[in-house]
Amino acid sequence: MHKRELRKPDGRRLLLYGRAPIPAGLEAPSPASTPGGDGSHLRWHPLRGEWVAYASHRQHRTFLPPPAYDPLAPTLDPALPTELPAGPYDVAVFENLFPTLSLAAPAPRGTLVPTRPGAGVCEVVVFTQAREGSLGALPLDHVTLILEVWADRYRELGALDAIEYVYPFENRGVEVGVTLAHPHGQIYAYPFVPPIPARELQAQREYLAAHGRGLVDQLIRDEIDAADRLVFLSDLAAAFVPVCARYAYEVWVAPRRPAPSLADLDAQEQRAVAEALKTVLLKYDALWQRPFPYVMAVHQAPTDGGPHPEAHVHIEFYPAYRMPGRLKYLAGSELGAGVFTADTLPEDTARELRGIEVTCE
Amino acid sequence: MHKRELRKPDGRRLLLYGRAPIPAGLEAPSPASTPGGDGSHLRWHPLRGEWVAYASHRQHRTFLPPPAYDPLAPTLDPALPTELPAGPYDVAVFENLFPTLSLAAPAPRGTLVPTRPGAGVCEVVVFTQAREGSLGALPLDHVTLILEVWADRYRELGALDAIEYVYPFENRGVEVGVTLAHPHGQIYAYPFVPPIPARELQAQREYLAAHGRGLVDQLIRDEIDAADRLVFLSDLAAAFVPVCARYAYEVWVAPRRPAPSLADLDAQEQRAVAEALKTVLLKYDALWQRPFPYVMAVHQAPTDGGPHPEAHVHIEFYPAYRMPGRLKYLAGSELGAGVFTADTLPEDTARELRGIEVTCE
Repeated sequence: MHKRELRKPDGRRLLLYGRAPIPAGLEAPSPASTPGGDGSHLRWHPLRGEWVAYASHRQHRTFLPPPAYDPLAPTLDPALPTELPAGPYDVAVFENLFPTLSLAAPAPRGTLVPTRPGAGVCEVVVFTQAREGSLGALPLDHVTLILEVWADRYRELGALDAIEYVYPFENRGVEVGVTLAHPHGQIYAYPFVPPIPARELQAQREYLAAHGRGLVDQLIRDEIDAADRLVFLSDLAAAFVPVCARYAYEVWVAPRRPAPSLADLDAQEQRAVAEALKTVLLKYDALWQRPFPYVMAVHQAPTDGGPHPEAHVHIEFYPAYRMPGRLKYLAGSELGAGVFTADTLPEDTARELRGIEVTCE
Repeated sequence: MHKRELRKPDGRRLLLYGRAPIPAGLEAPSPASTPGGDGSHLRWHPLRGEWVAYASHRQHRTFLPPPAYDPLAPTLDPALPTELPAGPYDVAVFENLFPTLSLAAPAPRGTLVPTRPGAGVCEVVVFTQAREGSLGALPLDHVTLILEVWADRYRELGALDAIEYVYPFENRGVEVGVTLAHPHGQIYAYPFVPPIPARELQAQREYLAAHGRGLVDQLIRDEIDAADRLVFLSDLAAAFVPVCARYAYEVWVAPRRPAPSLADLDAQEQRAVAEALKTVLLKYDALWQRPFPYVMAVHQAPTDGGPHPEAHVHIEFYPAYRMPGRLKYLAGSELGAGVFTADTLPEDTARELRGIEVTCE
């Protein structure tokens, strides 16, 4: 992995990553002359026991821009700068122009509940220079590079004192609110361990203490033994519809070894996880012969200073559709009670996905 | 409140409620000759620590039927039966034809994780015989009757050994997946305390133990004192955008006295909560001069046998839009990390809602 760091005229960082060396002398453009804003703050929700982020400067952010302008494409016309320079690189990472969290967030006015600055980092990860295509359609060594990039961001952002959790994710499709079709994901670096990973880590800690083995490790072994929900298996990685899937076609991808984070994977494991990831993505797109919208969430160890032997990095996919053309709406039971209701059995969706032949190279 | 219980030909219960007496001799129709299915089961999600419901018979349930047929309207043509009879009643409740939970659910086959029958009750609450309109547009004494109906269902379903939590809710609008425009809500009676109410109750228990006063009680007093997020206030009820709102235009409605459930309200309080509820709903619809889609969740004390002095019944609204025409998508941060990001400040949306004049009678 080759990496080069640049600074945009508005002060934001830009990181270029490549499988080949990246020349010096590239200049980082920006579509804006000033940062989009960093006035966000956090308020404590005393009933749910979680922080809520308020970033009111985001209300008027870019929304479905005309197709001619792609801010994630390389800048070709200096009069119409995008977020990225032209040049030989494969993946780019830059700080979001309208960040939900910013290390520069000022101290907010107090409220009835505990209130603190929205201190954190929000990065955009541009998967490829091509404005069309998808994560899964990239060559395997390009997907492997993206795993290396995520690991690099985990190490670098996680080393910041303010950051306790580094969370790479992808929202894919207009169905989950994506406004830019250019293949990209995001990284949120939070100043606390967010509630969903926190709950998963608590369960993993308790299981490790009781059984001397990781909960995700055991689940992967059990899924491999059961075999009927497996989607992909290699010596080093697995992908399966978990027995307790909340979404139709929900898939988890993980290294078989209980590595706490993406940064703990060796090169072979990175490539194995990339192969599992790419295989799942190709199957998703082949399933209904159309791009398959989802939220992809990477859950790994916090960067809060503590050791986290309980953590086992894994990638969870939450698909937007439950059947062709039928969205899964989160409504009363899911949003108000927290009880997910699934129309399909994990065994059935796994069988469908397993039956799709794809070529991963 | 007057009530009459009937039985449908397929075995499901039908309850009619009215402000005036309901004559005997009404017959309960059904669009189906047999129940839609009760084969659902629950699987334990070991990482999240919650039950997931699998009701695969729901996959092919009614979906956007042609406008001519409304299963929630009174039956006019016996050859085309709906769920309800013609007759003098105001509100009707019946067991869902395609229930996510059913007391008749059989013991499921075991899986890798704890697995149990999807035992529970799913009821449909038809707010009015009129196929158009909305909850908020009904006369105040009709809305008050609906609060009485919810209280009746709380008492009756909560008395069942299998039921630990009675949860009335409304999904309103195609934006949250509603397939029938006829004004209606639902009640899910769960065989466990669902994770979101469970988390809220835990916080309320801890607060009560530490402060000798309820957490929601204190929050309501604080919101009344602060005044800048209030939407409605009377001697017995309040409505406000909570200081920690996760959704734009999120509103909570509650009795000022810390009553654990809707069944604990006296007649004056029922009417006061109905007035607050109706006021909020009228303001919602007036805000952008169009029906305002939302999920409405009623959180109250469990019916698990224990005393729940910590519980303070309240109604939470989760609006679908964050601005006119712009949906709030739950995506990577909300679904994968559990961190809600809001574009608008609670103080601003409260001011907007407060400024809208409505007539509540």
